[in-house]
Amino acid sequence: MDISRIHFTDEDLTALEPKMEKAFAAMKALEGGAIANPDEKRMVGHYWLRASELAPTPELRTAIENNLAEIKAFASAVHQGQIHGERGPFKNLLLIGIGGSALGPQFVSAALGHPLRDKMEIFFFDNTDPDGMDKTLARIITQLGETLVLVISKSGGTKETRNGMLEAKAAFTAAGLNFSKHAVAITGLGSELDKLALKDGWIKRFPMWDWVGGRTSELSVVGLLPAALQGFDIQLLINGAAECDRLTRVADVKKNPSALLAAAWFLVGNGKGAKDMVVLPYNDRLELFSRYLQQLIMESLGKEKDLDGKVVNQGLAVYGNKGSTDQHAYIQQLREGIDNFFVIFLEVLNLRQPDDFQVESGTTSSDYLHGFFLGTRSALSENNRQSVSLTINRVDGSTVGALIALFERSVGLYAQLVNVNAYHQPGVEAGKKAAEGILTLQRKVMAFLDERPGQNLTCDQISSGIGAHDNFEGVFKICNRLGAAGRLRLIPGRTEFERKYGVE
Amino acid sequence: MDISRIHFTDEDLTALEPKMEKAFAAMKALEGGAIANPDEKRMVGHYWLRASELAPTPELRTAIENNLAEIKAFASAVHQGQIHGERGPFKNLLLIGIGGSALGPQFVSAALGHPLRDKMEIFFFDNTDPDGMDKTLARIITQLGETLVLVISKSGGTKETRNGMLEAKAAFTAAGLNFSKHAVAITGLGSELDKLALKDGWIKRFPMWDWVGGRTSELSVVGLLPAALQGFDIQLLINGAAECDRLTRVADVKKNPSALLAAAWFLVGNGKGAKDMVVLPYNDRLELFSRYLQQLIMESLGKEKDLDGKVVNQGLAVYGNKGSTDQHAYIQQLREGIDNFFVIFLEVLNLRQPDDFQVESGTTSSDYLHGFFLGTRSALSENNRQSVSLTINRVDGSTVGALIALFERSVGLYAQLVNVNAYHQPGVEAGKKAAEGILTLQRKVMAFLDERPGQNLTCDQISSGIGAHDNFEGVFKICNRLGAAGRLRLIPGRTEFERKYGVE
Repeated sequence: MDISRIHFTDEDLTALEPKMEKAFAAMKALEGGAIANPDEKRMVGHYWLRASELAPTPELRTAIENNLAEIKAFASAVHQGQIHGERGPFKNLLLIGIGGSALGPQFVSAALGHPLRDKMEIFFFDNTDPDGMDKTLARIITQLGETLVLVISKSGGTKETRNGMLEAKAAFTAAGLNFSKHAVAITGLGSELDKLALKDGWIKRFPMWDWVGGRTSELSVVGLLPAALQGFDIQLLINGAAECDRLTRVADVKKNPSALLAAAWFLVGNGKGAKDMVVLPYNDRLELFSRYLQQLIMESLGKEKDLDGKVVNQGLAVYGNKGSTDQHAYIQQLREGIDNFFVIFLEVLNLRQPDDFQVESGTTSSDYLHGFFLGTRSALSENNRQSVSLTINRVDGSTVGALIALFERSVGLYAQLVNVNAYHQPGVEAGKKAAEGILTLQRKVMAFLDERPGQNLTCDQISSGIGAHDNFEGVFKICNRLGAAGRLRLIPGRTEFERKYGVE
Repeated sequence: MDISRIHFTDEDLTALEPKMEKAFAAMKALEGGAIANPDEKRMVGHYWLRASELAPTPELRTAIENNLAEIKAFASAVHQGQIHGERGPFKNLLLIGIGGSALGPQFVSAALGHPLRDKMEIFFFDNTDPDGMDKTLARIITQLGETLVLVISKSGGTKETRNGMLEAKAAFTAAGLNFSKHAVAITGLGSELDKLALKDGWIKRFPMWDWVGGRTSELSVVGLLPAALQGFDIQLLINGAAECDRLTRVADVKKNPSALLAAAWFLVGNGKGAKDMVVLPYNDRLELFSRYLQQLIMESLGKEKDLDGKVVNQGLAVYGNKGSTDQHAYIQQLREGIDNFFVIFLEVLNLRQPDDFQVESGTTSSDYLHGFFLGTRSALSENNRQSVSLTINRVDGSTVGALIALFERSVGLYAQLVNVNAYHQPGVEAGKKAAEGILTLQRKVMAFLDERPGQNLTCDQISSGIGAHDNFEGVFKICNRLGAAGRLRLIPGRTEFERKYGVE
């Protein structure tokens, strides 16, 4: 880690020390099994996943170790064909999950995968868009009998994932296949999904623990099972993370990369997230790292209240894709425009072995990529734009595990510096509840029209009829969409508000 | 377009009117052929591409029309097998380009493509990462004889693209194929790339005009040729853009969606880009729209100086992927955290036809997606987070063309509101020059060591030896990478600075 392009001094670090001491102590307590997520009264145990000897009870330690052994055994049985689909060995993997159940596996698959070497090819349902699911299914529709489906939802009640599972099941059924013989559940013990998988006799159920948060679950079964199935060495991921954990436990800012990174965030953004974090890795494999970090960082740090209940509206916005590609998109703004960001550069020393194809005498494509990294960093520095550079030898299981661990701990430490709970997400329920309200409203609209076949009614009449005066807009949006999609009869009007809707 | 969740009043719009009048006038002059890019003394003509009758001279009009006819004829000849690869009809398309030569084709391919319907499958080299190119090549390595390569570079000198072309050519040669019989150039007349394609007898050369900027080239041959080759109806793209152009030429803010959007940007961000723009489309097909917009908006608006030479450090940061997926990543921060953003929601009314697969009684996957869009919008509004919602009937050529045109004109108008040149990119050269400096330094390091075979030298000794005291860091970074990659012998030292490097 090179922080030479961050504008802070030894004095700045010294001034942070009292806060940092508290952060180190809190992290130590967390790793020791404290209730580090006070709202949800939960332990925060993702660090134990890669160092089971640190788990606070022998039972947890055994559970972690047995789980890992089961993952390896399951992947091995799939690779050897002992566990197989109805029409042959499993060659495809369809992962159904969203947020913390998809972003890690997507990042790691892009980082470690290779089309000619992977043992299985992975596909994702990571949304409840039927069109998106249709497009993904189209790629494997003739091979469903050789496709293993992983359904991942910690709560077991995530609607996008439930819908994806039902859509996949329908496709299997339409192909004359028994979905249950192709499905694996990863979910909390006793969840709706767990019960379904048990009842229907799915191939296997893997447990998710309440002390592992979704956004820190990549090194749990959520990330390790798909990685193992694709043929990646998951022990490398675990060991890389464990090694980084050891390096970042040191209670000395200058010797602890996670603490230095957290300090950089604090000092650059004034402890308020005043600057966005732009993630520019110089290896295509890391293109999805920014998306992974969006969740890890923004969901952890973007909080209304601090741990004392004071309104602080914290956060740290993250975006970026890859260099040098993004240089051709927005380096213009980064160099000359609004200075509302800092960059995390990721330098990768080994891109191809042997690196001997010359595009000019003595110069390779990777020399250019490296030149663009250093050139861009200089050009930004010249204009006082700040950056941190991380260097890794190559993208492999070990460095990917280390990167995950590095940022996990930076997030944990930074959250302490700004005094927020990094492990809850109280703000996400509001949108889900409002969405349920819309679905309930849609059911009322449909029931109202179904009771009046042949009638054509305006949105005003419909919202009055169902007593939803207060949500005319919701009725309007629902009718507008169902009319456009042909699910309601639509009689045009002079304006959108005079349109009428009905059913046969 | 629904701007009800933007906090501005009629008075705010009225106050903007004088500026907006000037913006409308400037846009009219631009469309009339004025030198709208004063630095580069160029006309800005992307609007003529979809309304050739507006081109300022008959020659330009004819060129646009002939070009379009040639694109259609070429795609048709490929589809009919009259133009084919050495081992059969072209079934794959490898597009080599970066920035404006890749982001549009990537966006449109994701938006309009379907694995079972597309006439060709598209792959991209959009960087100079040899590892990334190797991974892409691995997917088509056995089918290169049926792969058409488009090399796209306006200047014809973009290094990433040149390198990609050389890497692809080497792969074709290794497969016993003549690259020239599979290659098409899209570049400025007389460029290095143009000369090479002519000399080597490539299949075809399509011209890029200096009055079309890279980031507004999607509706030129850059975007239209790959779209046509994939089997998309490019006339729909053109017509959709032309129709949106007509709607957004109206010199009345309240009746002009591009002007309203520009006004929203201005009022939300205080005319200084004070808030990031988060793009959340509710259809997986539009997942790459944010990346397309990153270039269109940030490269156009992110400027140091205004048109009067005053330092203004303008810009508008853009990020986002898709809803509801991103809700599970960072809606926590958007709802409760730092209020440094506004959202562009994209509502798509038709996702699947017929939309009849029910995940619950009467409820489909798309109902959930729509519910999450409305629910999230409400949840953000409740907490005073602002948003604009755009609604389209479905994602097709027509709406994609319209979306591109909508934002192009918003960018043009907003640039006038804040008085910057939207059509140049003076800041990108610095990074390229610095990168060339690094490559030159690397050549000096290698030459210095090559003259001293068998010797092992520290970076200090090397930088002194080549007279690069002022860039010790550059020498260090170069040696560090070449040592790690095995291209220099590396003798470990007690610290990184004591490492020695040499050649045989």
